[in-house]
Amino acid sequence: MKALILAGGRGTRFWPLSRELYPKQLLRLGDGKETLLQQTVTRLSPVVKPGDISVITNNRLKVDVKSQLSEVSGGQTEIILEPAPRNTAPAVGLGAVYMEHARPGSVMAVLPSDHLIREKDKFHAALKKAEKLAKEGYLVVFGIKPDRPETGYGYIKTGAPITAGAFKVEQFVEKPDLKTAGEYAQSSRYLWNSGMFVWKAESILDEIKLHMPPLYKSLKKIWGAIGTGKEQAVLAGEFGKITPLSIDYGVMERSRKAVVVPVDFTWSDLGSWRAIEEIFQKDKGGNVVIGNVVNIGCRDTTFYAEERLIAGIGLEGVVVVDTPDATLVCRKEEAQKVKDVVSLLKEKGAEEYIIHKTVRRPWGSYTVMQTGPMYKIKRIEVNPGAKLSHQLHHHRSEHWIVVAGTALVTNGERRYNVHVNESTFIPMSTKHRLENPGKVSLQIIEVQNGEYLEEDDIVRFDDDYGR
Amino acid sequence: MKALILAGGRGTRFWPLSRELYPKQLLRLGDGKETLLQQTVTRLSPVVKPGDISVITNNRLKVDVKSQLSEVSGGQTEIILEPAPRNTAPAVGLGAVYMEHARPGSVMAVLPSDHLIREKDKFHAALKKAEKLAKEGYLVVFGIKPDRPETGYGYIKTGAPITAGAFKVEQFVEKPDLKTAGEYAQSSRYLWNSGMFVWKAESILDEIKLHMPPLYKSLKKIWGAIGTGKEQAVLAGEFGKITPLSIDYGVMERSRKAVVVPVDFTWSDLGSWRAIEEIFQKDKGGNVVIGNVVNIGCRDTTFYAEERLIAGIGLEGVVVVDTPDATLVCRKEEAQKVKDVVSLLKEKGAEEYIIHKTVRRPWGSYTVMQTGPMYKIKRIEVNPGAKLSHQLHHHRSEHWIVVAGTALVTNGERRYNVHVNESTFIPMSTKHRLENPGKVSLQIIEVQNGEYLEEDDIVRFDDDYGR
Repeated sequence: MKALILAGGRGTRFWPLSRELYPKQLLRLGDGKETLLQQTVTRLSPVVKPGDISVITNNRLKVDVKSQLSEVSGGQTEIILEPAPRNTAPAVGLGAVYMEHARPGSVMAVLPSDHLIREKDKFHAALKKAEKLAKEGYLVVFGIKPDRPETGYGYIKTGAPITAGAFKVEQFVEKPDLKTAGEYAQSSRYLWNSGMFVWKAESILDEIKLHMPPLYKSLKKIWGAIGTGKEQAVLAGEFGKITPLSIDYGVMERSRKAVVVPVDFTWSDLGSWRAIEEIFQKDKGGNVVIGNVVNIGCRDTTFYAEERLIAGIGLEGVVVVDTPDATLVCRKEEAQKVKDVVSLLKEKGAEEYIIHKTVRRPWGSYTVMQTGPMYKIKRIEVNPGAKLSHQLHHHRSEHWIVVAGTALVTNGERRYNVHVNESTFIPMSTKHRLENPGKVSLQIIEVQNGEYLEEDDIVRFDDDYGR
Repeated sequence: MKALILAGGRGTRFWPLSRELYPKQLLRLGDGKETLLQQTVTRLSPVVKPGDISVITNNRLKVDVKSQLSEVSGGQTEIILEPAPRNTAPAVGLGAVYMEHARPGSVMAVLPSDHLIREKDKFHAALKKAEKLAKEGYLVVFGIKPDRPETGYGYIKTGAPITAGAFKVEQFVEKPDLKTAGEYAQSSRYLWNSGMFVWKAESILDEIKLHMPPLYKSLKKIWGAIGTGKEQAVLAGEFGKITPLSIDYGVMERSRKAVVVPVDFTWSDLGSWRAIEEIFQKDKGGNVVIGNVVNIGCRDTTFYAEERLIAGIGLEGVVVVDTPDATLVCRKEEAQKVKDVVSLLKEKGAEEYIIHKTVRRPWGSYTVMQTGPMYKIKRIEVNPGAKLSHQLHHHRSEHWIVVAGTALVTNGERRYNVHVNESTFIPMSTKHRLENPGKVSLQIIEVQNGEYLEEDDIVRFDDDYGR
């Protein structure tokens, strides 16, 4: 069995923790130290090995996705890049094409990368049951048994039983109002649409051919180009033309082969800040408190303090999220409107929409500490053994002061070590490289000076990460 | 006429904007660019000249108070330091002793440094009326005509008229409940106790002698020591013994000479974040918005964003205050509980209680940008023409990188300029000095390295500010 993990999502709903360039799937939400993407991979491991998993994402998230995957699957997991965001049907089709090409007859699970699942054993059992049905040609979707009247999810109405624990899909149902959701929760015939699927790659491609002929035509062309010099060009060309559509709308709602397997593991799509309560323990007042928080008489309130102190007084039903450059204070009932904030910031071109102050890189991370006229101050952290690219900047010089670890610096023709409490200066237009030759993290303070201080003033000569 | 401004308050109620070392009177709250303390001085100027004003504060606030006063009164305003906080009666008594000593028979106004007053003309007229009464031996307090049932203020009940627009005080009344406050607002006999007084220094000292004999005894000893070598020692010794008490409780409520002058200028004691609405314009939704804020459907909410972005969604009746190291989110009705946050932080010894990330100094300011193991990063801003003290540190070395302006550096025996984009290194235990010889602000980034990085590792050899 193979798996395709969808990891191209933009994840605006957990702003300011998530950003356009750091969406929800990359966040450490949940019980342990793994990100949601990493949890999705490790959760599969008893049933699908890392080498049988493909993760589909986009170019902008590639570096972070790759770096996270290397931590849990040692680089065995393949990454597929979609040239443009086209919703799930084209992504699923593309994944199916690659899988069918690599090993015809493959059964594939299709899984979002940003959901929470508890009780892994039940999840594994459900995968195995679904695999059998997939081999018979069915398109399987997992339906979660509702434990509450939830208006935030789509529902699946079960039809005739196919076998023990599997039903024909009678109907996909849009998000209901509260009254209807209450009726659904009472009935045994309505299940939450989990967005998790299992099918043969061949079966889903056949159904795409039937219900989405233009997409199928594009996929065929891409298939024909696999392994040739034209592969990337064809992929980009076809994705440029494809109409965005979800696999639910495009195929599942129309297919006569759709079946649902009811499952009862704990699941959440983490659709908004409200869902944080499903992950973390509440205190007696119903509050979830993460980070440095002083709480005076708040109830039913969620605090998420990344670095600084939050003091809450007398709040009820509020979410407070504090990050180094932005603070969200939101009435829980309106948590979905976080996307309106994100839209507004996007319109304004505000940085707080795109990136965090701390930006992860394959070699470590940097944090912009301050930007002023003609200068910018960064803290740079380089992992043991890692190195930045050999590069130069045309518009800025850089002062480096080592505050932890030892740096190996290439500065023009010279190559020398800089130790704690030592500094060095990289003049403008000088080829340079920063390396951490040691066993502990290297931390330097960089003060940039120049007329233009953006990230794109960089000429790379050599890079361990192929950038 | 002279004036004594009380500026020793700790101002916990505007946390996190105010801190123990930066209380409310030092904040730029109000219409213009002046701080509350500065407004208090300039507001007096047509009636009391800067040279006739004394400001009483404590040693910890001295540098900031002095620097703020120099901006509005060119150093003419005298500063009296209380050796220990003992509430208002001892502070007022001390101020009266100095005034009576300097010019016997002086009339003095006693004014808090952290109140808001509009309609200055009415204020000036009230001062002049009060001066006449003071000369007749009365202790005058200004009573504000209530425009709403306010439960946050103490009241004064007027007695028999003394002259046009002045009444005997019949009674000082504690903060009432809402029903009683409503009755007071209807009646013409109840006024808010403004905490602003006018009297002859001699009169208040006589009344202290009558109603607070132990305090009078201490004041007499201090008086006797003025101008002698023992002055500071006697002052410290006596203040060590004095029991804290307010001038209201200690004298005004007991004195038969207390009269009230009703005034109707706009006044607020800025007792909590709620009062911010009295200063700033509200938008259509009843919100006060200061700084970088995205507001999605909030009503009756106050946003105060110092540097970073605040996004508010669906809030009602909330105050959100964001500072570089702490965020407050508070239901308006419970704004008084900010002091509980401050108490908790004080118990924990949390820095967020004591200082801001940016600390003002007589020569400029510094901001702690980051503290790590063995290192600390500061941004230092030196005013044109200003210099830090000639100093050394036993436990740290310092890297300085100039990002704006030109620095004149004394480094051991050497003295040299450091220009933009140049750096220099001050080794441990080396005498050094940083000066801004130029006409524009000097900004440097300082990276400190060492085992001990606190402010008290400093040996000063020469200082323009007498520290």
